[in-house]
Amino acid sequence: MSQGITIALDAMGGDRAPTMVLRGAEIALERHPEARFLLFGNEAQIAPLLAKLPRLQRAATVRHTEERVLDDAKPSQALRSGRHTSMRLAIDAVAEGHADGVVSAGNTGALMAIAKFVLKTLPGIDRPAIAAFFPTRRGESVMLDLGANIECDAENLVQFALMGDVFARTVLGLTQPTVGLLNVGSEDLKGNDAVRGAGSRLRGGNTPINFHGFIEGDDIAAGTVDVIVTDGFTGNIALKTVEGVAKLFTESLRASFRYSVLARIGYLFARGALKKLAARIDPRGYNGAMFLGLAGIAVKSHGSTDAFGFANAVGVAIDLKVNGFMEKIRDELARLNQVPQNPQPQRSAAL
Amino acid sequence: MSQGITIALDAMGGDRAPTMVLRGAEIALERHPEARFLLFGNEAQIAPLLAKLPRLQRAATVRHTEERVLDDAKPSQALRSGRHTSMRLAIDAVAEGHADGVVSAGNTGALMAIAKFVLKTLPGIDRPAIAAFFPTRRGESVMLDLGANIECDAENLVQFALMGDVFARTVLGLTQPTVGLLNVGSEDLKGNDAVRGAGSRLRGGNTPINFHGFIEGDDIAAGTVDVIVTDGFTGNIALKTVEGVAKLFTESLRASFRYSVLARIGYLFARGALKKLAARIDPRGYNGAMFLGLAGIAVKSHGSTDAFGFANAVGVAIDLKVNGFMEKIRDELARLNQVPQNPQPQRSAAL
Repeated sequence: MSQGITIALDAMGGDRAPTMVLRGAEIALERHPEARFLLFGNEAQIAPLLAKLPRLQRAATVRHTEERVLDDAKPSQALRSGRHTSMRLAIDAVAEGHADGVVSAGNTGALMAIAKFVLKTLPGIDRPAIAAFFPTRRGESVMLDLGANIECDAENLVQFALMGDVFARTVLGLTQPTVGLLNVGSEDLKGNDAVRGAGSRLRGGNTPINFHGFIEGDDIAAGTVDVIVTDGFTGNIALKTVEGVAKLFTESLRASFRYSVLARIGYLFARGALKKLAARIDPRGYNGAMFLGLAGIAVKSHGSTDAFGFANAVGVAIDLKVNGFMEKIRDELARLNQVPQNPQPQRSAAL
Repeated sequence: MSQGITIALDAMGGDRAPTMVLRGAEIALERHPEARFLLFGNEAQIAPLLAKLPRLQRAATVRHTEERVLDDAKPSQALRSGRHTSMRLAIDAVAEGHADGVVSAGNTGALMAIAKFVLKTLPGIDRPAIAAFFPTRRGESVMLDLGANIECDAENLVQFALMGDVFARTVLGLTQPTVGLLNVGSEDLKGNDAVRGAGSRLRGGNTPINFHGFIEGDDIAAGTVDVIVTDGFTGNIALKTVEGVAKLFTESLRASFRYSVLARIGYLFARGALKKLAARIDPRGYNGAMFLGLAGIAVKSHGSTDAFGFANAVGVAIDLKVNGFMEKIRDELARLNQVPQNPQPQRSAAL
């Protein structure tokens, strides 16, 4: 168990858990045969499912618990009274060094609260943020925060920019990702105090970040920057707005092809190309939001996803481990934190 | 000129002005033969264009000015030194009773600043908001504020809800539109102070509004409510996010049909149905954002639109006049303002 990569799974989190979680782990295992899993949940439910997934059975260890975090549990309540839940035990496994990361499709607020309490935040980070990537005209971009922090100041946004930069380099493999601040216009004076303050600090150049400047809502899908930084209120609404529009388009397109006999025939011809498009915009392909800023890898899967989507969330956790995300972000933060601690005069930093 | 409806047009505002403005007015005239236009702008440029549009020529009067508001002018600068610009004179025409409404595709900030200064806000309204409608799964919804107010308190949001309600009844013809507050979750405790405060007041039932509660980003495209209320920062980003995703989808779909010979053949069969879809989501069909809360009808067109899109913005101004929007919103505000002025004890309002 000590070799390779071990991921702790909250087997009881998600609308179709534990079946979806186990089938998802099986798919992830096909892609990452080196992975091992710790499955936290009800053994009576898990064992018969595992029996039908022999590959996963060989790569997994079940840690039994009867308790789980309910979908409507308040974060504070899940934190106080949920010490034996599958979610808590899976996070504990990371803190105790038994696993390299945790993936859960359960209650988002509870997962963030417990992960923050158990794993702690990294030095130099005040608040963790939720980050995810999604398709754009140019490829893929990362956006954060997606809802962990409803109100943010300039310092929070600068920290998000830094974490997003390391995340994009690690998961998207970019050497110098561009970072943009989501705003209502591109001019320096636009926006609220937090955005203007963060913009001025990032333009100041005291960070290793390749700062593009302010971007607007239409830049998200255009892929104008690799990393989109915003507060959790705006980010959550922007992300869900994208999801809603994508769903409406897919439905409308489907309805169009059912509209007439001619359209149905047209679909038969164009099917191959349309399936390629559908695969590219399939939200399951982008499932797996990372809790950035914690001293451990914690990935949140959509609660309503299926095995294919869950496998992608597991893949995010594995990629973060394989690519040394934790080491890179610790290095970056240590480097940044040296600046104010530096006894030399400020101007020497510009040399 | 005193009969029918007269719309003042800023003939010099917009990327392709004045040609786009004049051709747009010609299209609007085909739909609303009763309309008359006051065209503010450079007569030397306008006259030769009008000569080619005989229908518009008969319905329009040119008011010559050499000045115009530049696209990069600051609102304060346009307000102070732009007294003879085509935009200012068009707004003045509404204030002086020569026109029933104004439409401009020029500088948004300048248009809002000048319109607010010249037309004034309605009694009971602290800040005007920008509202527009767009396609959803259920039909059409209205969203406001789309960028006039970067930071809003609970009272502003309640006023926006009221204005959006009257707007939806007037322009969409709904008898009892549902109103939702954009938030990061549907539970009462979610969101920032402004959203929670406005939610609690709207739930309180002291308004004539059919309040649905909090909605999330994906409810925008789903058409969960008829009126979406949010602050100008979030609303601007949500609107532009929708536009960006819609553009990406349209482009991706087009690329899919060019992907292979089979796909091209498929397109030929499905073309009729796809064109119907394209027409429904054409952003030009939803051009025309209303400045709500002013003592006069002022509509902003996208600067980059074409004649077809500009005609739709003109149509919004005409619809607002024909359907008595100004009278309705004044009545509604007077009714609401009676509540605090009412000398009877509070509890009598609940009877």
